[in-house]
Amino acid sequence: MKKSTVAIVGLGLIGGSLGQALRRSGRYRVLGFSRRAGALREAKRRGAVDEVCSRWEDIRAADIVVVATPVDRIVPAVRRILPYLRPGAWVTDVGSVKGVIMKELAHLLRGRPVHWAGGHPLAGSHQTGVKAARSDLFQGSTSVLVPGGKASLKPVLALWRAVGARPLILSAKEHDAAVALTSHLPHLLAHALVQAVAAHPDRALLKKLTAGSFRDATRVASSDSRQWAEIFQANAPALRRAIRQFRRKLDRLERSLTGSRLRPLLKRSQRFRRPLFNGI
Amino acid sequence: MKKSTVAIVGLGLIGGSLGQALRRSGRYRVLGFSRRAGALREAKRRGAVDEVCSRWEDIRAADIVVVATPVDRIVPAVRRILPYLRPGAWVTDVGSVKGVIMKELAHLLRGRPVHWAGGHPLAGSHQTGVKAARSDLFQGSTSVLVPGGKASLKPVLALWRAVGARPLILSAKEHDAAVALTSHLPHLLAHALVQAVAAHPDRALLKKLTAGSFRDATRVASSDSRQWAEIFQANAPALRRAIRQFRRKLDRLERSLTGSRLRPLLKRSQRFRRPLFNGI
Repeated sequence: MKKSTVAIVGLGLIGGSLGQALRRSGRYRVLGFSRRAGALREAKRRGAVDEVCSRWEDIRAADIVVVATPVDRIVPAVRRILPYLRPGAWVTDVGSVKGVIMKELAHLLRGRPVHWAGGHPLAGSHQTGVKAARSDLFQGSTSVLVPGGKASLKPVLALWRAVGARPLILSAKEHDAAVALTSHLPHLLAHALVQAVAAHPDRALLKKLTAGSFRDATRVASSDSRQWAEIFQANAPALRRAIRQFRRKLDRLERSLTGSRLRPLLKRSQRFRRPLFNGI
Repeated sequence: MKKSTVAIVGLGLIGGSLGQALRRSGRYRVLGFSRRAGALREAKRRGAVDEVCSRWEDIRAADIVVVATPVDRIVPAVRRILPYLRPGAWVTDVGSVKGVIMKELAHLLRGRPVHWAGGHPLAGSHQTGVKAARSDLFQGSTSVLVPGGKASLKPVLALWRAVGARPLILSAKEHDAAVALTSHLPHLLAHALVQAVAAHPDRALLKKLTAGSFRDATRVASSDSRQWAEIFQANAPALRRAIRQFRRKLDRLERSLTGSRLRPLLKRSQRFRRPLFNGI
């Protein structure tokens, strides 16, 4: 079977891991593109790419282009490679927000002889960069796909399946509302919690009294601040709705602090959460 | 050197781990008390006690009594053992809230020929029960001590140091305000976050889109609901102040969602958090 050629634009944790996993599947040849020479070298060294490419013209060889840059650089990257895309090629991305990106991509790609779909693999880490790349990063995870047109998503579905992910086709709106709750809200709350603790006048004391609950709840506050500022801003409307929903639940818990309704409320969240993570 | 005798009343995760660690230090003989015969057997089997005791009279042998029951049973347990305490014996506890407990213990113990101090080892797990006990649970952790009188805390300090903990002497008020922020608030937020996510109409979809950030931020929502309902209620005033502080920080983050101040705000929490956990 002839290998498909995938161009990965942006070689960080996601791009690097995807390259490693695609190559390990034996079904893809991977071309790596990055503005940073260091990332290119590192990607090659870690087996994330077959070839490093330094000219945009090389994108012509790609059957599928995966844009794996930070959220605010996805649309500029697509604009940059557009002149070099082969007719019939696929373009997709890995951005954590889909609404604004899909809208701009529609504007950019409408009428062009290429196919496109938005993508968001729900895998990652508070670590960043190709040095943290792992070929098993997507194993068993969900990869959201948002159709950009009427074409069958077959090549993009096959790509994510090849790296062990479970593709899930959603609209941009469904995606953005859901991840606002399950990912963007936990990240924002982590920052608010750190800042509430940091506001205590005796920081030295507080540092001695931080327990595992604080550590785990705020782990993601250490994620890249530039990337997350972009994600929060790009998904601000859905995130605001998620915050509103969260406030309602917090208010109810606070009102129940001194009544008999508190324990049933705690048990309710346990019943929802327990089957999600096998009790972890 | 003659071993001191420690009676542990309540053999769950904390009581069991303390017994194991005290015995391992070679400096303590441990007597185990529990209402539950199963916990007594298990504690013996796991090396958490030298002897299991079934009569309160046996408390007479103890130089130090550590009440390691859930928060709402601490004061009743002290009342129960009071008639059997040897003159000069120490009484302490491991409750996560100190204000209400210290107040009631003062009422109970004033004028008695015994010494007492409140205690709170900042160690634990979302697991419970003596089966989860580990002799290294307190290694490197902070153990708060709240003096109950004018006596030197020497025997209680020595006990916590023997199990690898760093004792920290605080007033009940200082303790309760600090742990409201660093422990009770993260637990309450975990429940509010789970409930906000559970309120989404398509739960099956949400389950596919829960990422590591949600899992970690809500891990402690799986902690024992009975114990946590008691802790929240016993520390309700300080917890309400912590919630108010948290809301201020969340409001500010939300107002900054679409401005240039967002990234500096995110960086601010990172600067506070990073040195706490060596980047984890």
